[in-house]
Amino acid sequence: MDPDQLAKAFVEHYYSTFDANRAGLVSLYQDESMLTFEGQKTQGSQNIVAKLTSLPFQQCQHGITTVDCQPSGPAGGMLVFVSGNLQLAGEQHALKFSQGLVALLGESRALFCRSSLIAVHSSSFK
Amino acid sequence: MDPDQLAKAFVEHYYSTFDANRAGLVSLYQDESMLTFEGQKTQGSQNIVAKLTSLPFQQCQHGITTVDCQPSGPAGGMLVFVSGNLQLAGEQHALKFSQGLVALLGESRALFCRSSLIAVHSSSFK
Repeated sequence: MDPDQLAKAFVEHYYSTFDANRAGLVSLYQDESMLTFEGQKTQGSQNIVAKLTSLPFQQCQHGITTVDCQPSGPAGGMLVFVSGNLQLAGEQHALKFSQGLVALLGESRALFCRSSLIAVHSSSFK
Repeated sequence: MDPDQLAKAFVEHYYSTFDANRAGLVSLYQDESMLTFEGQKTQGSQNIVAKLTSLPFQQCQHGITTVDCQPSGPAGGMLVFVSGNLQLAGEQHALKFSQGLVALLGESRALFCRSSLIAVHSSSFK
């Protein structure tokens, strides 16, 4: 598969899981994974999912605007850069978000997030 | 030096060079470097600087809001994620930008951008 298409499919899978079943994101991280969410660092798939499921909003809908990727790290690894809108339930205006991530192929040959940095612009989800 | 401080110093150096002497960015890229600017990919330091110096704005001022980093790749490598404001000369409102980059240590032990992805939100600098 073309790397750009693969990156896009991975990101769509990530955000559809985030919106529909946030706890299911555990399958997209591993023990070595690190998440930086609005400046706060968390390591390991269980801790990362605990962080993401404890954010002060439950229902949300991510709309992806751009997905760019470049090869990075070991064979099959990608640096992916995402921007988009984050619509929270009950809020009139969507927020802007961006995410940088390094996706690597795991032992099962499925991609997982090795590094993941999320910023929600003009927000304070600390 | 603490990795977060190193990342911050590198990013500040990158953007002060961008604003004051854009052609000087050539020293922060190498032949293997890749830039994705608003979805367009460019490879190699000379091509990257040609791209950045040909953008449809000359005078600009970057204001950095956040710099986050995680270790990535070979020893000393970092995944850095930046967000901030981009003020163009003569424009009333600043634009929002974000950048994801992988910085590696070169042969001279100085950091350079291996991968760099820049998005200017709500813009069309294609």
